[in-house]
Amino acid sequence: MEYSILRNLIIEIPQMPGNFAKVASVIGAEGGDIGDIETLKIGTHTTVRDISVQFENKEHVERVVDKIRALGDGIVVHAISDDVMKAHEGGKIHMSSRRPVRSLGDLRRVYTPGVANICEIIHQDPEQADYFTSIGNTVAIVTDGTAILGLGNIGPVAGMPVMEGKAVLFDQFVGISGVPILLDTSDPDEVVETVKHIHQAYGGILLEDIGSPHCFEIEERLKKELDIPVMHDDQHGTAVVTLAAILSACRTAGVDLGKAKVGQIGLGAAGLAICKMLMEYGVEEMYGSDLNAAAKDRLRESGGTVIESINELMEKSDIVVATTGVQGLIKKEMVREGQIILALSNPNPEIAPDDALEAGAAFAADGRLVNNVLGFPGIFRGALNARAKAITYPMLLAAAEAIVDSTKPGDLVPHPLDPNVHVNVTEAVERVAGDGQLD
Amino acid sequence: MEYSILRNLIIEIPQMPGNFAKVASVIGAEGGDIGDIETLKIGTHTTVRDISVQFENKEHVERVVDKIRALGDGIVVHAISDDVMKAHEGGKIHMSSRRPVRSLGDLRRVYTPGVANICEIIHQDPEQADYFTSIGNTVAIVTDGTAILGLGNIGPVAGMPVMEGKAVLFDQFVGISGVPILLDTSDPDEVVETVKHIHQAYGGILLEDIGSPHCFEIEERLKKELDIPVMHDDQHGTAVVTLAAILSACRTAGVDLGKAKVGQIGLGAAGLAICKMLMEYGVEEMYGSDLNAAAKDRLRESGGTVIESINELMEKSDIVVATTGVQGLIKKEMVREGQIILALSNPNPEIAPDDALEAGAAFAADGRLVNNVLGFPGIFRGALNARAKAITYPMLLAAAEAIVDSTKPGDLVPHPLDPNVHVNVTEAVERVAGDGQLD
Repeated sequence: MEYSILRNLIIEIPQMPGNFAKVASVIGAEGGDIGDIETLKIGTHTTVRDISVQFENKEHVERVVDKIRALGDGIVVHAISDDVMKAHEGGKIHMSSRRPVRSLGDLRRVYTPGVANICEIIHQDPEQADYFTSIGNTVAIVTDGTAILGLGNIGPVAGMPVMEGKAVLFDQFVGISGVPILLDTSDPDEVVETVKHIHQAYGGILLEDIGSPHCFEIEERLKKELDIPVMHDDQHGTAVVTLAAILSACRTAGVDLGKAKVGQIGLGAAGLAICKMLMEYGVEEMYGSDLNAAAKDRLRESGGTVIESINELMEKSDIVVATTGVQGLIKKEMVREGQIILALSNPNPEIAPDDALEAGAAFAADGRLVNNVLGFPGIFRGALNARAKAITYPMLLAAAEAIVDSTKPGDLVPHPLDPNVHVNVTEAVERVAGDGQLD
Repeated sequence: MEYSILRNLIIEIPQMPGNFAKVASVIGAEGGDIGDIETLKIGTHTTVRDISVQFENKEHVERVVDKIRALGDGIVVHAISDDVMKAHEGGKIHMSSRRPVRSLGDLRRVYTPGVANICEIIHQDPEQADYFTSIGNTVAIVTDGTAILGLGNIGPVAGMPVMEGKAVLFDQFVGISGVPILLDTSDPDEVVETVKHIHQAYGGILLEDIGSPHCFEIEERLKKELDIPVMHDDQHGTAVVTLAAILSACRTAGVDLGKAKVGQIGLGAAGLAICKMLMEYGVEEMYGSDLNAAAKDRLRESGGTVIESINELMEKSDIVVATTGVQGLIKKEMVREGQIILALSNPNPEIAPDDALEAGAAFAADGRLVNNVLGFPGIFRGALNARAKAITYPMLLAAAEAIVDSTKPGDLVPHPLDPNVHVNVTEAVERVAGDGQLD
């Protein structure tokens, strides 16, 4: 028998003698090869185990699982886990104590009676919370689950793995404590009220995977009403990394972005934010195209020019960015000689980079490299370090420049695991935030 | 010079050559002895250092700090930290990644594109969130800051060190991920709405240090509207540990609690919950006394008997529990021969145990040992393990019995750092919760 795939079966088995042997026998009889067995939970009535098994192929997995399920007797196969799933088992984050509690002395310091002193100190002087609580190092990662990755409105619980992923990256890259907040409402009034009611535990708010157009109102109102940094990553985080990629591309192609005509195809949350970021950078001729009338109005209000036809936009623009989600929207014959084209829709771009280059583009890339991971950790670390009350365009522009400065020659953007990029973004953002506060 | 105390000075110093030397010189010139120096934050403009200094006495600390403050030049003494404060510096908790992200492979598994698979799995089958997110292992620690320890209504930010302390104990004793939620409102409608809007990220809700009487409505409504365990620790956590202490005292004094007459002095959140818990245990004659009319009504509604005079209550009761916060309320001449008296107000009990014993009590204790730490971690661990939808009286009574069973002969309650007590409470609660679900 040739084993080609490894799966972990998460199986709950009632605690009766012989029950586990039944499961092992079925797996063996069907030709599965049992490896490690990990006990995930010993309950009062049942035990949940993670049983690692080698199989021939997917059909073999299904055959064995069907046989286990047919055993009955309260034996339940909860999940069939592969390599990726295994990395998510039990969740990816945990709220940890920063210091161990080993003695009664420790307990009296971190809990009663010692903790009362600290509460009194903060009560007398609220700014002391910066030193004696985790608040200033904590960012809420807030979603309503309406625009999870490319999956759409799958709800906040199904979106939780993304929020936990963001918390993992906050922790690993910049030491921020990221706390997922899952909202069961998308109504802007309710979202704003809810976040306001809980905001005091956080040094900043990262809005995440909230759909358009309600994301605009929610972010605007929270920015106005809270005196801590608020940023919708799908808008401004994406725009920062996109601006960095455009600046790198311009450098490669010898183009001056400030003097270029830029066309943005798709004016959703990301597209509109990219337009605004480019205009803040100094782009004077900013064109945009979308089917949605409200989206076009938002571009006009922001100072951009709406162009109805994509053909016309392609013709007029030196640089084109596409975020439509429509595979193959840009045809080779629409590409202009010497154009810079970033077709960012994942996983299927509006035009394949090779096709764009073949059609005469000076530079072309798709969305695989334009990863938000490069931006949000350092942006928030810098804002928290500076105790900034908001995230401003000068801070975001500084972040984009820092990403460009961290890029190795020949690359479009830095490797996301290069620690330098996060340090550089942090410092750039903190410097600008600090300068702003000295004004 | 004789040094008797150690303090840590948290000082922010602008990054100009010689600035740090100025601070060190002042400390030295005034006779302070500098020890370890830790850099807490290197900012763009300033550096924050934790400077450990030995002083003669408190006046000496003040003299040195005044001189440092007089230096000017942007040098700021943010805090003067002692041993207890040091244990809280930077906060006591951090949201940590459970697995390191070291390679692009790791990044692709925990973040895009891998994470999308997990989101889809949960979207198809919401129960899979139990296996692939942290939700089922996470408890929100919710406060509005209106009744922080014995300090009263000092607000949720000043109360944060207590919430972080609870999260530390959750982590260290039972491996639960505890997330503080600080509410800026005490209005029951707003609190209930807010917690409902964010509850999906949690396997349970611990209400903490919420004042009376609004704590009653908030807990009741949340219990009714949410299908996850909700418990106000200041009520039921305290009641569980108190019941355990009473059972231990009864064992020592040879009293049968079920047949005893019990008097509760003080019918606040804790007092009323103790009455209810005792009646659930089987106490048939439950007396209560309070100055507040609404509190007395609540006892009557719960099936207890109000006794207006404390003298009369003392006379009628075999067992007396006091939670009034009034030091010395119980006079020696009020104590009846053979009575069991738990005077729980901290730090100053209603009657000192020695005085009560001298006056003829069979058993007397104060509140130092009746620590909630013995209850809530195992109660929630057990409830989460059983995937319970609520915390019921049978679960709480089982927790109290488990605490009694974990108590060493001669002790009133177990040592809070004895790991057995948390394991025993967990198992007892889980068993009862599981049985309930099998009904």
